[in-house]
Amino acid sequence: MRPQDVIRRKREGDALSAEEIEFFVQGVTSGEFTDYQAAALLMAIYCRGMDETEQRTLTEAMLHSGDVLDFSDIPLPKADKHSTGGVGDKTSLVIAPLAASCGVAVPMISGRGLGHTGGTLDKLEAIEGYRVKLTLAEFRRVLKLCGFAMMGQTAEIAPADRKLYALRDATATIETIPLIVASIMSKKLAAGLNALALDVKTGTGAFMREESRARELAHALVAIGNSCGVRTEALLTDMNQPLGRAVGHALEVHECVEILRGESHAGAAPVLNLSVELTARMVALAGVEPTLEAARERVTRALGSGAALECFRRNVEAQGGDPRVCDDPARLLQTSTLRAVKVESPRAGFVTQVEAAEIGYAVSGIGGGRTRLEDEIDFQIGFVADAKLGDELRAGDALGTLYCRDDTQGRQAGERIRAAYTVGDEAHVAPVKLIKEVITA
Amino acid sequence: MRPQDVIRRKREGDALSAEEIEFFVQGVTSGEFTDYQAAALLMAIYCRGMDETEQRTLTEAMLHSGDVLDFSDIPLPKADKHSTGGVGDKTSLVIAPLAASCGVAVPMISGRGLGHTGGTLDKLEAIEGYRVKLTLAEFRRVLKLCGFAMMGQTAEIAPADRKLYALRDATATIETIPLIVASIMSKKLAAGLNALALDVKTGTGAFMREESRARELAHALVAIGNSCGVRTEALLTDMNQPLGRAVGHALEVHECVEILRGESHAGAAPVLNLSVELTARMVALAGVEPTLEAARERVTRALGSGAALECFRRNVEAQGGDPRVCDDPARLLQTSTLRAVKVESPRAGFVTQVEAAEIGYAVSGIGGGRTRLEDEIDFQIGFVADAKLGDELRAGDALGTLYCRDDTQGRQAGERIRAAYTVGDEAHVAPVKLIKEVITA
Repeated sequence: MRPQDVIRRKREGDALSAEEIEFFVQGVTSGEFTDYQAAALLMAIYCRGMDETEQRTLTEAMLHSGDVLDFSDIPLPKADKHSTGGVGDKTSLVIAPLAASCGVAVPMISGRGLGHTGGTLDKLEAIEGYRVKLTLAEFRRVLKLCGFAMMGQTAEIAPADRKLYALRDATATIETIPLIVASIMSKKLAAGLNALALDVKTGTGAFMREESRARELAHALVAIGNSCGVRTEALLTDMNQPLGRAVGHALEVHECVEILRGESHAGAAPVLNLSVELTARMVALAGVEPTLEAARERVTRALGSGAALECFRRNVEAQGGDPRVCDDPARLLQTSTLRAVKVESPRAGFVTQVEAAEIGYAVSGIGGGRTRLEDEIDFQIGFVADAKLGDELRAGDALGTLYCRDDTQGRQAGERIRAAYTVGDEAHVAPVKLIKEVITA
Repeated sequence: MRPQDVIRRKREGDALSAEEIEFFVQGVTSGEFTDYQAAALLMAIYCRGMDETEQRTLTEAMLHSGDVLDFSDIPLPKADKHSTGGVGDKTSLVIAPLAASCGVAVPMISGRGLGHTGGTLDKLEAIEGYRVKLTLAEFRRVLKLCGFAMMGQTAEIAPADRKLYALRDATATIETIPLIVASIMSKKLAAGLNALALDVKTGTGAFMREESRARELAHALVAIGNSCGVRTEALLTDMNQPLGRAVGHALEVHECVEILRGESHAGAAPVLNLSVELTARMVALAGVEPTLEAARERVTRALGSGAALECFRRNVEAQGGDPRVCDDPARLLQTSTLRAVKVESPRAGFVTQVEAAEIGYAVSGIGGGRTRLEDEIDFQIGFVADAKLGDELRAGDALGTLYCRDDTQGRQAGERIRAAYTVGDEAHVAPVKLIKEVITA
């Protein structure tokens, strides 16, 4: 078998055999499949697609290109959640301790932010001292100690995915369901999970803006998860405005700690509600509670009792962070060193549309995120949104507050954020339905 | 502009702008477009196509990636022919001296053989001492002296094509019309031609087996040639059996010299007829004769008078080869050192089908061609076909004679060639129409 024979078959729209897919994935790791041959095959997959059997084979081949973690010595079901990414999408920081406090072990392997979205690892690093670069032994120890542990993908986990993802990024072959599914699921399956709750976002701040495409992705992810033996469900959720109020690393951690403390702002309700629902699904799928209803009650209790906050505190301590942020979330914010710029509505009317990705890009563009992989992040920079879709505003009312370093940044990002909001005359904007659909099979 | 932006646009099926195509071609040469990005774009072009404007822009960008030769100091119109390749397709060796003897200068930049097809440069090297690696100065001197000169693509001619062709070969992106057109025409246009006759082959020994695809290619080539200012026509010709009798390097040169000497075997008539027709088109397109009919007459006269043979002799001498092959073509063949194996028809009946490519592969497979670019060729090895489509045979009659080095080769290639012929009961096989169509615009 030669790489070009496999490429030729996919180019013609044929379904690849398991042998061909394994040859591809192993060849990418070994170098027998060169980068340019892999790139050609990725584009052929982009153009011609892959059926469910191919997707499953690709996922498993990528999974087995590296180590599969074994946490069978931890006598708890393992579950995780994964989000396809959005703006202000910070639920992992609430969900991981919340699920852990309900008797689910959460070995969470997360990512970095790029472009308009943030990454869980970056957000955690906004906590002074917090280490996300753990050895597998440390990760295991933290997981046992706290019920959850957070780290990045290591060189041992799905190495084929690391290589392919870098190629896809450089060759415009990211946005195709078979490759997205294999990339997400190969990493998630490497953590040896029993259950997985997925948050597939759609809207102006999501990778899949179109709802039909996001739904298609959700179905594909759920199908592959279940066929690989992980009980998997997906929520299709709204990403037509930032989730909650905070966009920016320290600001988002702050919002999450407030939620865990039971003292969050009303504007953070979507973060709270979505976190509870996703955690409840993890708890139910993992079999810790017999019904979704019982799982919701348990999760709500764990949040109300402060048990989730305690889990979080133990984790922060175990991973080297300053646990005092749990008692005094304001420690996360260095407000005095920042310039707070009110972003004003240019006119009276109703918020009819928000280009959420633009808000993410505006914050990234002044250092509050990455525009390139090698960028350093200023954790303090961010935006706190006040106006939500449907809100009525007067001219000059705050759309929100931008936290930045100087006036130039303020003007640059402030203008971009202002332009992201459409304030129009329509009095009746359809209310936002946060959870649009539940996909269970 | 970034490579991935260009890839993304083509991936979505958009037509690329001139600026984008030039960025691609220049980037491939400079390295700004990496190999894997180029491979992804090539596959996107394979899957999504390119319109005529894009094809023309791509061709011109590849042409201008290197030197364009200027023969304006030679006071003759310049013309060339190009074939898309087949088995036993040796007309260049007749056409170049024939056109030269009619007052057309033929600066012919040819290729090497690979797989089932031979290459003109390799065939010329079957003449002892013949040098195809000329400097541009030598090429110009030979062209002035003989009216035609033969050489390979140099590093200076369309370097982007060299790079892209190697990538296409490794990534299964050869067989797509926009890329074929740009590759062929960028090299042909680099010779500074006024006229070009194309031989687009279709059938079991052609790259384009399907007639409809070959016709599409012919139309695309003619359109680009004319729009780039070169008067261009194409013949759509049959390649459902070897052209003429000889397949193999020395054997093919031998067949051509016999044609130039006016003493060829009846089985070589298709080579003769096609060469005359293609040369006549070159002569007419170049404006040397006012009508195609006048051009045919002039070409036939130049062949009959021995003028073409004299041109060939001068060229062989000028390019370092042994000119005595022109007087005694048998010098080309070292028959005494070879084993001649009769390939017999397994049954009585009519030749109803010939898998011409299989004959080419059979000869290549025992050293008479290249299966890999780095292979050395045994010029003496080859096959002389006796049976043609429609011929009636008795069991044991010769399909042809295989010239090889030993019994193992004889069995291996003999069996493969025998299997390439279908001898059936149908008495009436449709007569082969060598020239199926003329495409003039």
